[in-house]
Amino acid sequence: MKAAIIMGSTSDLAKVEPAVEILKKYGVDVKVRCLSAHRAHAALSEFMNEINNDGTEVVIAAAGMAAALPGVVASQTVLPVIGVPLSGSNLEGMDALLSIVQMPPGIPVATVAINGGKNAAHLALQIMAVSNKELRDRLWNDRKEMEEAADKANKEVMEKFGC
Amino acid sequence: MKAAIIMGSTSDLAKVEPAVEILKKYGVDVKVRCLSAHRAHAALSEFMNEINNDGTEVVIAAAGMAAALPGVVASQTVLPVIGVPLSGSNLEGMDALLSIVQMPPGIPVATVAINGGKNAAHLALQIMAVSNKELRDRLWNDRKEMEEAADKANKEVMEKFGC
Amino acid sequence: MKAAIIMGSTSDLAKVEPAVEILKKYGVDVKVRCLSAHRAHAALSEFMNEINNDGTEVVIAAAGMAAALPGVVASQTVLPVIGVPLSGSNLEGMDALLSIVQMPPGIPVATVAINGGKNAAHLALQIMAVSNKELRDRLWNDRKEMEEAADKANKEVMEKFGC
Amino acid sequence: MKAAIIMGSTSDLAKVEPAVEILKKYGVDVKVRCLSAHRAHAALSEFMNEINNDGTEVVIAAAGMAAALPGVVASQTVLPVIGVPLSGSNLEGMDALLSIVQMPPGIPVATVAINGGKNAAHLALQIMAVSNKELRDRLWNDRKEMEEAADKANKEVMEKFGC
Amino acid sequence: MKAAIIMGSTSDLAKVEPAVEILKKYGVDVKVRCLSAHRAHAALSEFMNEINNDGTEVVIAAAGMAAALPGVVASQTVLPVIGVPLSGSNLEGMDALLSIVQMPPGIPVATVAINGGKNAAHLALQIMAVSNKELRDRLWNDRKEMEEAADKANKEVMEKFGC
Amino acid sequence: MKAAIIMGSTSDLAKVEPAVEILKKYGVDVKVRCLSAHRAHAALSEFMNEINNDGTEVVIAAAGMAAALPGVVASQTVLPVIGVPLSGSNLEGMDALLSIVQMPPGIPVATVAINGGKNAAHLALQIMAVSNKELRDRLWNDRKEMEEAADKANKEVMEKFGC
Amino acid sequence: MKAAIIMGSTSDLAKVEPAVEILKKYGVDVKVRCLSAHRAHAALSEFMNEINNDGTEVVIAAAGMAAALPGVVASQTVLPVIGVPLSGSNLEGMDALLSIVQMPPGIPVATVAINGGKNAAHLALQIMAVSNKELRDRLWNDRKEMEEAADKANKEVMEKFGC
Amino acid sequence: MKAAIIMGSTSDLAKVEPAVEILKKYGVDVKVRCLSAHRAHAALSEFMNEINNDGTEVVIAAAGMAAALPGVVASQTVLPVIGVPLSGSNLEGMDALLSIVQMPPGIPVATVAINGGKNAAHLALQIMAVSNKELRDRLWNDRKEMEEAADKANKEVMEKFGC
Repeated sequence: MKAAIIMGSTSDLAKVEPAVEILKKYGVDVKVRCLSAHRAHAALSEFMNEINNDGTEVVIAAAGMAAALPGVVASQTVLPVIGVPLSGSNLEGMDALLSIVQMPPGIPVATVAINGGKNAAHLALQIMAVSNKELRDRLWNDRKEMEEAADKANKEVMEKFGC
Repeated sequence: MKAAIIMGSTSDLAKVEPAVEILKKYGVDVKVRCLSAHRAHAALSEFMNEINNDGTEVVIAAAGMAAALPGVVASQTVLPVIGVPLSGSNLEGMDALLSIVQMPPGIPVATVAINGGKNAAHLALQIMAVSNKELRDRLWNDRKEMEEAADKANKEVMEKFGC
Repeated sequence: MKAAIIMGSTSDLAKVEPAVEILKKYGVDVKVRCLSAHRAHAALSEFMNEINNDGTEVVIAAAGMAAALPGVVASQTVLPVIGVPLSGSNLEGMDALLSIVQMPPGIPVATVAINGGKNAAHLALQIMAVSNKELRDRLWNDRKEMEEAADKANKEVMEKFGC
Repeated sequence: MKAAIIMGSTSDLAKVEPAVEILKKYGVDVKVRCLSAHRAHAALSEFMNEINNDGTEVVIAAAGMAAALPGVVASQTVLPVIGVPLSGSNLEGMDALLSIVQMPPGIPVATVAINGGKNAAHLALQIMAVSNKELRDRLWNDRKEMEEAADKANKEVMEKFGC
Repeated sequence: MKAAIIMGSTSDLAKVEPAVEILKKYGVDVKVRCLSAHRAHAALSEFMNEINNDGTEVVIAAAGMAAALPGVVASQTVLPVIGVPLSGSNLEGMDALLSIVQMPPGIPVATVAINGGKNAAHLALQIMAVSNKELRDRLWNDRKEMEEAADKANKEVMEKFGC
Repeated sequence: MKAAIIMGSTSDLAKVEPAVEILKKYGVDVKVRCLSAHRAHAALSEFMNEINNDGTEVVIAAAGMAAALPGVVASQTVLPVIGVPLSGSNLEGMDALLSIVQMPPGIPVATVAINGGKNAAHLALQIMAVSNKELRDRLWNDRKEMEEAADKANKEVMEKFGC
Repeated sequence: MKAAIIMGSTSDLAKVEPAVEILKKYGVDVKVRCLSAHRAHAALSEFMNEINNDGTEVVIAAAGMAAALPGVVASQTVLPVIGVPLSGSNLEGMDALLSIVQMPPGIPVATVAINGGKNAAHLALQIMAVSNKELRDRLWNDRKEMEEAADKANKEVMEKFGC
Repeated sequence: MKAAIIMGSTSDLAKVEPAVEILKKYGVDVKVRCLSAHRAHAALSEFMNEINNDGTEVVIAAAGMAAALPGVVASQTVLPVIGVPLSGSNLEGMDALLSIVQMPPGIPVATVAINGGKNAAHLALQIMAVSNKELRDRLWNDRKEMEEAADKANKEVMEKFGC
């Protein structure tokens, strides 16, 4: 399994890191890059060319403010591109959300929540699992664990309130 | 190739139809359903069970207003779920966008633009193409055609303005 | 008097606790649960079945972000469901507010203010008081105390400014 | 069963009428009034006094723009008050929504969707059904009919697309 | 010169105090009250009656969230009513702004900026100055001082940057 | 009684006209001008000088989009300035509302609702009535008529619904 | 004088045309292109290379929705880039505005109003006039004409209202 | 090279300073002023007259809240005016953004991001570079340095994640 994660700026590192960790935990071979759509134009194209030909299955692109990165990435690949709008401006990520989600027909970006790095990783796993029975089984298993964790949380709440 | 499209209400038909057409054009075996998260709870669970076991690769869920459908669908599958926020309330789809995109960690929804049915279909194709070389090639070919169409549009504009 | 309070996540505990306390203060027999619409699907349905048959009169559901919980709860009962949009994302609860209040016809959610746990409890009491003369009298009495508190606050302000 | 519906202006009539019709269909004895919080202060207080003493069980208040009506109504009763934000200004009801839902602690308004007159009526029925087994059974029956209608809609969609 | 300032809650004190101070500095006889539109209905009406008959010339009403106070005050007087939307909810005063400014025809509220207590006082002074030559001259004089202060600030900036 | 109304563009005429008519109906001597803050800088200053010296008591300034007019008018007078945010851009007057209401301390603008020309006139009358007992009596009388009209509307609604 | 105008789609033609006409009226040699940032990646880079070397002085880029075009254009030139956010989605251009204006440090886009094609042309002229005394004189002359037109509009308004 | 920077208030100093520093670093002769559109009307006009005649090539105007400054500056010059919306109110600069960017036809303001002082300086440099080959070369050189910095950042990220 191969994925790529591109962030627009090193200031986004902390918000992107959880996605890297989740993918690695699942044994995904992940390439992580910092390639601004506006400041690293050529390097971004080069990297897009690389991942279009090395077996990469899905791309995560995270950016804040005008957040052109996910769309520009999407325009240079037919791999599924997951966009993560980041907060970090005065508009709390609403600018990035609209910049990423409102793509014109033909070039989709799969947008997740503001600062939703974890969900970007989960979505990437789901996409790779479409043709990977083992991963799919593991994701189903995770759901069961998630349900168990939810069940435990519920029990704690019941205990706390004694009702 | 197998996909499912779920809309929340028959009033969403016209906005969902382009997605069906695109998927069919690519030879995708698509199941189309109208299953409200709020009004067809049991039938939705039944259908989710069906597509979790019939080889469906990706699900598109389109809904307006409170738009719980895509998230509820996502909670019952580990297939990638694409959410399409629909306009149709006084808030022009902003309500549906936030209801769909702001999912909590663990249950992602791949959100596209407001009324972005076409892009939902394109994203579904990209996801299925991850493990389908032939489809991927076709998508690359589409990009070339898209570029040619863009080139033609550009030439028309140049001609119109004579500059 | 019987009521149920469901929160979507244990991180919502502090915002839900005031509602529990108010209901208990009025002698309401309250069941408190942590049941995510997305992560505890089956347990939520089970609990809905339970409260549909144990004399529960009203349900409070509190959730943040995509906040499908109140609507999903409402779809599984004909009891009045009070929705509490919680802040906790970058959008300060505006996402949760629209996700909760913009319900389609047939499945209403009685929405209160962002982080309005206290008012959710007061609304629950008013609903239970419709057929409970004693409680209704107590609520009228509370209004008088509220007015007296307001009167005292006014006097303090008058004193402070000497005018 | 007794309910009251108050609108702020006759220009709101068409948006309020569906609520009246639903309540009447269920045999609710409904009083309909046009009483602006700002222009009919005394008459509103008088009417509030009337419904506080005639067995009215729930009040619906619909208003647009600054939309003080539901809150002012709520301040003069301990009956549950359902607020319906109406569009009709340039802000498409967002002004009315915030004016109605953001009530301070102690005086709740059960807010429904913008122009959500139908849901206001359904919520009123649910509230009256808390102590009315027959009505509650009827509401459960409606849910079954709603599900059947949803099922029929789904079948039409399946037929239309042949899949 | 006589003015009244009404706040909806003692938690608004710090935001209202600058307005009181400015009015007092100009020798205005100011009555300050804490009278919630929702929790002190009768006391508010009584106070409105008082200031409608004691020579009060202008009323300032400050409130947050649903902020019905300024509109309710305006409905009980023909004196000019100045509304001050206060922050203090998760929506940073945008809820209060729309609740105050979007009044229906016939009952205006003169709305100032979010937390704009100072400007409310200045506007009150301007209104009282319409028929008060001495006060008007003083306000013109203030403008000159404001210009001088602006000139001093400009000189400091020029010095700081040496250009 | 003397008032001035300034609009930013002739395209605002229809929205300003009701204000002119109301003022004339009350016998106010009203000067109406079209003076853009951005395109008629000198003429605006000249007019401000004129009305600062001819007994004008209040100024109404109506503008759309960036809507600097009311603030610029306010900076050149100590008369009360009423700002009317006009729709007319894609943002439906929300741009004009924020541009007008968010004035810095010292230079207030009394802002009314989007397209609230009528209320601007009513506010102007209230301001002039502060020192005009006859006008104030007339405004109280209008309130009575408004209440009677409200009462009539209420009766029509009661008749229509027969309840 | 040389300028370039790039639109993202032929559907933007009508909104871009006024800008072309204004530039031509002033004798600007203008190249008009339709080059989507997402669908005409290579052709856009080629055109950017062309105008970086043919004496073009300023670039106007107009786009709607995710509107990456102006930023991508700006990243490939050091010429001043003027961005025109276009309406055309359900969000009325607010998406395009934020996508265009919220650029990160180092790559500015000079953003004008939503659908502000005319102002984009005027800004382009002002930029070219910095080093073109004749054009600057003409722009000053236009201002005089604008003032005269404003004066005429004012006179019409005065005549219409007879005051 | 000559530029002017005008801020509306000394409280904006820290947000404006980076722009001054960048311009000085490039050898621009920069005049910095603090001149409120509302509080320093005459001084602003005087300064506008000064820079219209001293060879100034571009003006930066930064302001928060109602933010009339950039528009008023633009109305008194045909030099390109760059507007910087500043946060500093409860609305986080959204008010200033709309007040600055939504200018009517004929008087453009080149708007940059909220608190985008740095980009205002870069845009000013690009405008001055239109007729300044040396500066343009330097800006191209900066782009190369920016790319190198981006490249270095990318390498750090690659190293950090070892992938």
